[in-house]
Amino acid sequence: MPAERIYLDSAASTPVADEVIQEMLPYLKQQYGNPSSIHYFGRETARAMQLARMRVAGLIGARPSEITFTSGGTEADNLAVKGVAEYAKTLPKMHVITSYVEHDAIIEPVRDLERLGFRVTFLPVTAEGMVRPPDLKEALAADTALVSVMHANNEVGTVQPIKELAKIAHDAGALFHTDAVQAAGKMPVSVADLGVDLLSMSSHKINGPKGVGALYIRSGLDIMPLIYGGGQESALRSGTENVHGIVGFGKACELAGKRLPEYRLKVAELRDYLIDKVLKEIQHSRLNGSRLDRLPGNAHFTFFGVNGEDLIIKMDENGIAASTGSACSVKKQKPSHVLKAMGFSYEEITGSLRMSLSLQNTKEEVDRTVQVLSEVVAELRSLSPFKSKYV
Amino acid sequence: MPAERIYLDSAASTPVADEVIQEMLPYLKQQYGNPSSIHYFGRETARAMQLARMRVAGLIGARPSEITFTSGGTEADNLAVKGVAEYAKTLPKMHVITSYVEHDAIIEPVRDLERLGFRVTFLPVTAEGMVRPPDLKEALAADTALVSVMHANNEVGTVQPIKELAKIAHDAGALFHTDAVQAAGKMPVSVADLGVDLLSMSSHKINGPKGVGALYIRSGLDIMPLIYGGGQESALRSGTENVHGIVGFGKACELAGKRLPEYRLKVAELRDYLIDKVLKEIQHSRLNGSRLDRLPGNAHFTFFGVNGEDLIIKMDENGIAASTGSACSVKKQKPSHVLKAMGFSYEEITGSLRMSLSLQNTKEEVDRTVQVLSEVVAELRSLSPFKSKYV
Repeated sequence: MPAERIYLDSAASTPVADEVIQEMLPYLKQQYGNPSSIHYFGRETARAMQLARMRVAGLIGARPSEITFTSGGTEADNLAVKGVAEYAKTLPKMHVITSYVEHDAIIEPVRDLERLGFRVTFLPVTAEGMVRPPDLKEALAADTALVSVMHANNEVGTVQPIKELAKIAHDAGALFHTDAVQAAGKMPVSVADLGVDLLSMSSHKINGPKGVGALYIRSGLDIMPLIYGGGQESALRSGTENVHGIVGFGKACELAGKRLPEYRLKVAELRDYLIDKVLKEIQHSRLNGSRLDRLPGNAHFTFFGVNGEDLIIKMDENGIAASTGSACSVKKQKPSHVLKAMGFSYEEITGSLRMSLSLQNTKEEVDRTVQVLSEVVAELRSLSPFKSKYV
Repeated sequence: MPAERIYLDSAASTPVADEVIQEMLPYLKQQYGNPSSIHYFGRETARAMQLARMRVAGLIGARPSEITFTSGGTEADNLAVKGVAEYAKTLPKMHVITSYVEHDAIIEPVRDLERLGFRVTFLPVTAEGMVRPPDLKEALAADTALVSVMHANNEVGTVQPIKELAKIAHDAGALFHTDAVQAAGKMPVSVADLGVDLLSMSSHKINGPKGVGALYIRSGLDIMPLIYGGGQESALRSGTENVHGIVGFGKACELAGKRLPEYRLKVAELRDYLIDKVLKEIQHSRLNGSRLDRLPGNAHFTFFGVNGEDLIIKMDENGIAASTGSACSVKKQKPSHVLKAMGFSYEEITGSLRMSLSLQNTKEEVDRTVQVLSEVVAELRSLSPFKSKYV
């Protein structure tokens, strides 16, 4: 086993920051009241949640009352899609538009809407994974209830023109949702500037705890709940609140907001260093996605003549954690729907590798990674039936 | 402010046990991998989840594969009700039976089923809050998809005859779900013995962390998901798993199982001591619910001529945390639907108070509580318009 492990999978999950853990701990042991209780213990946790709500709202320029806490980004996405659809059904507006490169947390609930009788349009993307605004304009109809396009792609890091897309949706009388799970805390995200109606966030992608996220719901917008019960979160999301998780998420948002300038500068610099080094030192490699409109921490390549999963395993043996794409889809054992939508061939998809960086990573780690990657790619290519093509 | 606070609201929430916190901590800071990742970090968290799944299953005599982790008891209840209903709709079986004394986490999703075209029967209860088996027999029909009756009531602590009810449901071809959020870990709960198809659990009621729970789904039973996405939890509950929460829940279940004999003995003894002392020392007080079929930790009274919420506030001023009933319903400002179903008058409901005990409570705390309660009840009665009746 390697002495020091290198973690290049921050898009999948991140360690909880020490300051976040410190703020969470009192809400496990001493302050354990149910926030709905009217006694001292309940008031203490309700107060802590209010501070967290302010901090989460602060990261995206929203009002605290516009934040609904959920169990994570996936639930926030489901709540946005199903919550709007259940409401729109009564209008009736039964058309939903999304893109082919969304996370499964959007694709799957949208597929479920199809089962429930909704009409669904999936927008195509460019070779860089970008939704074209004219395509959205064309897809909109009088019965379009919702358009959902992610802010930044989890696999290839492409940042979508959300502001423009939201305006087009609004001009046609549709609501606009964006899954900002990969974007919020990693690039400036302002709901006012973007003009979105709904926006999903996740805690564990920005050094907060797992099991908590939020849906921004623009003030005045009515949607239906997904989980019914005691009426917590203004009756939009019932269930005893995950207080320590919410407190941690709040602190993580505060930290992410503060470090954003440093993050954007340093992580993007390290990413560019990684990209340039890989492209220079490893033959038959290609960067996927957009070079310009890209998340600071995302580097996604195709190594021709290599199987990405073999690559992950070989890198793991060398103590380096990377991913073929979305962590969620690994177990589904199906080729990436994102890369397919970008027009990639089977070989281009198979040879793909995502490395996602954070402020914890160093230049030395990148050097070591590219060195290992060079060796591993060469080794795998030497075993490949297409050997003559790439060795 | 009082020197030592007395917490008598364990039915609302509990502190996380030290051993539980110790097991959770590594999964915040060092082991932060996404369990879906195939590299070292992912494998470590996936392994931890498997141990937790075994421990949770162990508490209720289930197989690990029959446990689906959720964000809490409310989501587990929603998943059971909606998951069965969505599936049963295709059969079609569009009738659901529940009781008037369920938690809102059952009542509200069942009400939503009504909106979606299902037929719903609410079973009445006895004055002690008990569902009568013949009433269930009568309510069952050929199109009954699901019967959901809680194992133990959160307000008055009444334990239902689940085994008998489940058999009646099965004999009529319906599935049986029980909300065991208040029961699991506090009394022996065995899915095999009870013969239930689905059972909901919560972590934060048994000294585990908030934000995590589970639904037991009998092996071979098909239900539909509530939250769609990456396909986690055998595609029944998508979203990156709340690893540290699940680990904590697992440990809490292990501890609850081990301490159960002690819990049942000591907590029930303390409860009986509290009940006897209250009834003896405070005039015009009455125990609600069943004396025999009762949760070990539950004591629920009516103090005639007093407003329960005033009582809570006065006790809180004296450093004692109690509740009028369900914490969730406090903010709804509506009279308890449970006490209404038990046939209570408005005065009987208004004067109600729940004190829920745990192994952390002591005889000295109970003595102090009853002393404060005596004084506070007397004080409030002296201010009451019904003064002449009870002073």
